[in-house]
Amino acid sequence: MRSDERPHVVIVGGGFGGLEAARALRGAPVRITLVDRQNHHLFQPLLYQVATAGLNPADIAAPIRGILRRQKNVLMLLAEVRRVDPAARRLVLDRTELTYDFLILACGATHSYFGHDEWAAVAPGLKTITDAAEVRHRVLWAFEAAEQEDDPARRAAWQTFAVVGGGPTGVELAGALAELARHTLRRDFRRFDPRTSRIVLLEAGPALLPAFPPDLREDARQRLERLGVEVRLGSAVSDITRDGVRVGDDWLAARTVLWAAGVAASPLGRTLGAPLDRAGRVRVNPDLTLPDHPEVVVVGDMAALEQDGKPVPGVAPAAMQMGRHAATNVRRALRGLAPLPFRYKDKGSMATIGRAAGVADLGRLRLTGYLGWLAWLFVHLIFLIGFRSRLLVLFQWVWAYVTYERGARLITVPVEALRQGEARPEPEVPEAGPVDLPAAGGIEKARTS
Amino acid sequence: MRSDERPHVVIVGGGFGGLEAARALRGAPVRITLVDRQNHHLFQPLLYQVATAGLNPADIAAPIRGILRRQKNVLMLLAEVRRVDPAARRLVLDRTELTYDFLILACGATHSYFGHDEWAAVAPGLKTITDAAEVRHRVLWAFEAAEQEDDPARRAAWQTFAVVGGGPTGVELAGALAELARHTLRRDFRRFDPRTSRIVLLEAGPALLPAFPPDLREDARQRLERLGVEVRLGSAVSDITRDGVRVGDDWLAARTVLWAAGVAASPLGRTLGAPLDRAGRVRVNPDLTLPDHPEVVVVGDMAALEQDGKPVPGVAPAAMQMGRHAATNVRRALRGLAPLPFRYKDKGSMATIGRAAGVADLGRLRLTGYLGWLAWLFVHLIFLIGFRSRLLVLFQWVWAYVTYERGARLITVPVEALRQGEARPEPEVPEAGPVDLPAAGGIEKARTS
Repeated sequence: MRSDERPHVVIVGGGFGGLEAARALRGAPVRITLVDRQNHHLFQPLLYQVATAGLNPADIAAPIRGILRRQKNVLMLLAEVRRVDPAARRLVLDRTELTYDFLILACGATHSYFGHDEWAAVAPGLKTITDAAEVRHRVLWAFEAAEQEDDPARRAAWQTFAVVGGGPTGVELAGALAELARHTLRRDFRRFDPRTSRIVLLEAGPALLPAFPPDLREDARQRLERLGVEVRLGSAVSDITRDGVRVGDDWLAARTVLWAAGVAASPLGRTLGAPLDRAGRVRVNPDLTLPDHPEVVVVGDMAALEQDGKPVPGVAPAAMQMGRHAATNVRRALRGLAPLPFRYKDKGSMATIGRAAGVADLGRLRLTGYLGWLAWLFVHLIFLIGFRSRLLVLFQWVWAYVTYERGARLITVPVEALRQGEARPEPEVPEAGPVDLPAAGGIEKARTS
Repeated sequence: MRSDERPHVVIVGGGFGGLEAARALRGAPVRITLVDRQNHHLFQPLLYQVATAGLNPADIAAPIRGILRRQKNVLMLLAEVRRVDPAARRLVLDRTELTYDFLILACGATHSYFGHDEWAAVAPGLKTITDAAEVRHRVLWAFEAAEQEDDPARRAAWQTFAVVGGGPTGVELAGALAELARHTLRRDFRRFDPRTSRIVLLEAGPALLPAFPPDLREDARQRLERLGVEVRLGSAVSDITRDGVRVGDDWLAARTVLWAAGVAASPLGRTLGAPLDRAGRVRVNPDLTLPDHPEVVVVGDMAALEQDGKPVPGVAPAAMQMGRHAATNVRRALRGLAPLPFRYKDKGSMATIGRAAGVADLGRLRLTGYLGWLAWLFVHLIFLIGFRSRLLVLFQWVWAYVTYERGARLITVPVEALRQGEARPEPEVPEAGPVDLPAAGGIEKARTS
């Protein structure tokens, strides 16, 4: 690439925000380096389907390199960003460094356990493919363990699934678990009846789906209960162990607890020296830039921005709009124009509830039940990246709809590990040691020399 | 289940042999316990497609429970068998024990590194879904590392893939790797050209595919070389490190070494106190029973049996025939009839070479090239368990054929772990500790009381 004189745009994160920013800079007179610690873009809204064995990981994840194959001004690096040094316009990666003319930070969010980090080991959340595999292993193993258990109370604890958090992820997870227990696995065990399993959805606030209008919230609650989910509102969790959940004075014996409650912005924001909100999001200017650093833009779940007195929500459409906006302002800066402020256009929200029901709030149009589900299906298929994924996912959905079958019921962790409560399909990150990769600055040097 | 007076048949292993035995006992007046440490039956012949990112794990693995859902005389247990005590007709599992009237051992085989167990850490083999995920991670990471490497010699080592062993697995792996480098990834990198990658297939013997007739062997070699694979015959490996492979006086710098050479029978055979062959297989009577134990049958890759002066090969059709035979003899024993000796019917062998070529030896009919590949495709689709898998796999094959795209290019291991050479998506099995599962005999008691 003979491109060294072009301004260098570094994008951190290949999620909805970062990928949109990269694509919107197609053909721009810049060289782009996109850094992600994963090699794939993940369609997070369908992660709960992977966690409940309905879809394969590769159905909702596409290699970033493949997506950007034809965009020759992008170099992709699979690497971990350790910190940002805005004063020096420099990024420190795990094995090298990068300098930039423009920086677009799109690192997303992770789980927050509200100060109870010890809950992470017993109540996995749902942000990555690895998280989804862990949830799938735990859920499938719970049924296996119930089959092997003779004591009724202990078997009941294996058959009890607590989902903490009544937002879209919690609602979708609970609905899919109910379907799994009541239909998919119905005939698969000999020593207990999976239909007697309990799925308990715990929400601290007064209603499910707080971002939806009250009638849709109520509709969702009723539909979940018809599926057999116990919905407990006003139920703040005060403790989680590997044996269950404490809610006020109540103890719920549940060997499987899933976390769909708190979200915290990527810890990379802390290295910026900029003001953060309580969830660790970077408080950005109206044009999404960092105070005093017009060359640094923060987009997506990492950015804290208010609009008309309300925070811009941490959802995929907002991240995509921010990513495109960041690209627009980079193009403007190249032409010497001032940046434009960002305006979020709310296109609505939707969630599914089990097999063929959903709620969709599309502004003036509100859909529930089958129509809500069709709207959800349509929008999610449209946005699934890659034609191949779309057809495969559609096929699997039709198949699951007709047969109640779920096609990805694999456990790939050893039995002994599962018995110890270890369901994570991932090695611990080892201590840093000698590696054969370029020294700090290697890539940067190679590109600028 | 009101079945306690029926004879108890325990089957260990849900692979081709064990699953066929269970299915062939459908409706028989026995109660069956099938024990496997995996929850899925794996279609091993296609594992190389998962390892090279062409198929999803769930496309070639189906939950054993789902397969046997309608067969009410089978109880499935996800557990690890520690040892067999033939004198007491007893199996010791990881957390419980089972007694049996008939035992069918179908535990398959694992890799053998010919006394060099230290090679296992640097040259993964291909027997399980976890193995395939590890190979996929290593292969995809090698290209990522090459993109980040400035030193030409070190980049070349990342771009060199050594496959040890020229049987069907080695041939298929090498062909698929060549396709990946030459076609799929061709446009995905900016700092090197993946088409300059080297794929080296090392075979200690004088020819590839020793089980095939000489003309097919030669055809396979020529086709591999046309794909760009370097085939080195008479090349016994004397050392493997994370930097490469030693062959005689030659050192091949290769950061990715894959093992497709040695096979050893499941170590469970050693606990039987019966004579074993060099590969750890149990030397069985002509009716597949253990010497002095007519109630213990060994089938599949775990059994050593000669027929007409030649060993019965360790292939899926032989395992399936043995599994059905074991079931036949159990049914005969129930009627007081003597067991029949086993006769292996060789239906032929086949292997693919890259995109649309294969060799098939079907006795009188020998096919090469496109016809060989079609025969392979047809037979493998027919035998894929589950209609859903079949359609999905066919769709992905057609898609891959038309576009050269491979749909499952995911890395789900942290970058830091990959840099350290850790590509295995699985936690180490932790030390045994207190668990809440039934004490020894729990399940057995529950069923007999």
